[in-house]
Amino acid sequence: MNAIASFTIVPISSGISLTPYIAACKKILKNSELTCEFHANGSNIEGEWDDIFRVIKECQIKVHEMGAKRVFTTIQVGTRLDKEHKMIDKQASVDHYLREENRGLRD
Amino acid sequence: MNAIASFTIVPISSGISLTPYIAACKKILKNSELTCEFHANGSNIEGEWDDIFRVIKECQIKVHEMGAKRVFTTIQVGTRLDKEHKMIDKQASVDHYLREENRGLRD
Amino acid sequence: MNAIASFTIVPISSGISLTPYIAACKKILKNSELTCEFHANGSNIEGEWDDIFRVIKECQIKVHEMGAKRVFTTIQVGTRLDKEHKMIDKQASVDHYLREENRGLRD
Amino acid sequence: MNAIASFTIVPISSGISLTPYIAACKKILKNSELTCEFHANGSNIEGEWDDIFRVIKECQIKVHEMGAKRVFTTIQVGTRLDKEHKMIDKQASVDHYLREENRGLRD
Repeated sequence: MNAIASFTIVPISSGISLTPYIAACKKILKNSELTCEFHANGSNIEGEWDDIFRVIKECQIKVHEMGAKRVFTTIQVGTRLDKEHKMIDKQASVDHYLREENRGLRD
Repeated sequence: MNAIASFTIVPISSGISLTPYIAACKKILKNSELTCEFHANGSNIEGEWDDIFRVIKECQIKVHEMGAKRVFTTIQVGTRLDKEHKMIDKQASVDHYLREENRGLRD
Repeated sequence: MNAIASFTIVPISSGISLTPYIAACKKILKNSELTCEFHANGSNIEGEWDDIFRVIKECQIKVHEMGAKRVFTTIQVGTRLDKEHKMIDKQASVDHYLREENRGLRD
Repeated sequence: MNAIASFTIVPISSGISLTPYIAACKKILKNSELTCEFHANGSNIEGEWDDIFRVIKECQIKVHEMGAKRVFTTIQVGTRLDKEHKMIDKQASVDHYLREENRGLRD
């Protein structure tokens, strides 16, 4: 089952700067075979459901190993069966729609 | 790794009533060995990380099998290493704190 | 616009126990005129959109005032126009469905 | 109170393609004075707390006006008091950390 996930990891009680933890997770994601997009509030991951949740678990464990005693993670995950579901298409589809609208092709 | 998760599953494009889908997921959770709490906006699940994510995946597949072509799921998951982490203690701890505060034992 | 929200507030860098912060937010919610449900991973709030977001903001400010320098909050909010949307009906509807299913009234 | 939010809006029961709804929200965000970042799973918004929640409400109303009878929205919002909190700095800080690590300046 192919999926697109959004993932935010928050170590609690580890000081106010989360940078080292986020950096470690970014490395894990980049070293995975998954398609990832990094943004200001988390990471997007595209791939097989099991692969996505394996790297998320790997991040959770890593952040604990780095010293965070408590970790709070939010995940949003979408799946669809009607067509191949790709992150790159989601944004392209919205921008294509807006361009057509600007050209008067949509109301 | 023990965890406490909150889980909300939203079938898209399947009509406005989500009741049959939520009911099917509630059955899956109740039939699992996991400690679950059902509330108005989702379900809380307590147990081993892998067990939690296995039932969430089972729900996602079930909702697709019931006819939803697109499914959007949000998960919040917390882990802590300093002590056993139980849902029942989280609420009890808050209520104990408020009772002590009312009795003047806290400021 | 009537809404049902789920709300989780996480102070970061404030020690591993979040109990005092959660207790303070629970007091704010209980003192509001809104219908609230407290569960192990957050609070559900039912009412007017603006009222809901006013108490959420009040909680965010309170947690900062209590000493948290950084606060991370997740909110899920649902609105529907086809009928009055009540938390109590959401769970009742699922349980009614499961009872009918058990009695063979559903397949 | 300055904040950084992540925001995902999901119309339910409006067909499987969400593109027209997401496009309409993107227009609202672009026409606001707020700093926005668009990604595959939602939008990030930076600015005053009240301004952020005003545009989110505007999007929620717009999606209903376009025909969605039920709308499910998830929001993550972070605030910090110790320094000015900017989206551009969050990613830069992580990348700076990783570069230093690569150069052997971090272990």
